[in-house]
Amino acid sequence: MSRLDSFIRRVSAQRDCLNMVAGMVSGINGPVLELGLGNGRTFDHLRSLFPNREIFVFDRQVAAHPECIPDDDHMILGDIFQTLPEAMQWIGGPAALVHTDIGTGDAEGNARIAAFLGHHLPALVATGGIIASDQDLGLDDWKRPALPDGVPAKRYHLYRKN
Amino acid sequence: MSRLDSFIRRVSAQRDCLNMVAGMVSGINGPVLELGLGNGRTFDHLRSLFPNREIFVFDRQVAAHPECIPDDDHMILGDIFQTLPEAMQWIGGPAALVHTDIGTGDAEGNARIAAFLGHHLPALVATGGIIASDQDLGLDDWKRPALPDGVPAKRYHLYRKN
Repeated sequence: MSRLDSFIRRVSAQRDCLNMVAGMVSGINGPVLELGLGNGRTFDHLRSLFPNREIFVFDRQVAAHPECIPDDDHMILGDIFQTLPEAMQWIGGPAALVHTDIGTGDAEGNARIAAFLGHHLPALVATGGIIASDQDLGLDDWKRPALPDGVPAKRYHLYRKN
Repeated sequence: MSRLDSFIRRVSAQRDCLNMVAGMVSGINGPVLELGLGNGRTFDHLRSLFPNREIFVFDRQVAAHPECIPDDDHMILGDIFQTLPEAMQWIGGPAALVHTDIGTGDAEGNARIAAFLGHHLPALVATGGIIASDQDLGLDDWKRPALPDGVPAKRYHLYRKN
């Protein structure tokens, strides 16, 4: 499979997972957290799925398309290792959904991020809320919703808080 | 439609068009030209489709994944407005396929590139060869093969030389 094929599958899996979990958290109150703004495409998709929720985006810097940048109150700038442990002061209450897609090509860095997220995210998620992650976060005591049709195992990881 | 949806459609259309035209030029001799290396995903796809052809890539700089960079003899570095008119010295003979996806968000710049490509590409393409372009290149006297199923009109432009 070429990198183009692989990329299309990865981005389509992201879209399909977000579309599914949007339905699953429809009865759960709380904002949406997006870890990593990047070019802003996923943020744009999230705001199309959640027009009536606050969406807080965490990233080190803003390098997105000008039309895909949150307002200052919803763009949490800084190193996520510093901002995430203090996130409740900005988000106000536990989140209905956290989406994280901040893996890099660096396996060691990814493991460090995954361990950090697995430790700090649970306190930020409402009961019944969902974490959708490109990486395995552990969270062995959370429910594991099935992935959407066509999304290969381990391409995305879904966790639902009990 | 969100930018994520739109992006998935655009990249999938590219893949579907390239897969189709690979079959259409199977009987045409000549190399493949890729205008714009970018991250190298499309180059990687082209070399999976054309394992036995030379593929020449034109770009101003190399910013691709290390595994998706052509060797020095096939990476034509420089401003395409300068390199393309002199391309025959590197490619050796007319191309079976030219793929171009170098549009930007700038409509005026795109129009200038499209006019330039429409003027210079025809001399670089073999009879029966194909140009697949993200932009309308004019070329009113060329055949216009139908797009693959599911690719919306004008998302890609296919031209076949008579």
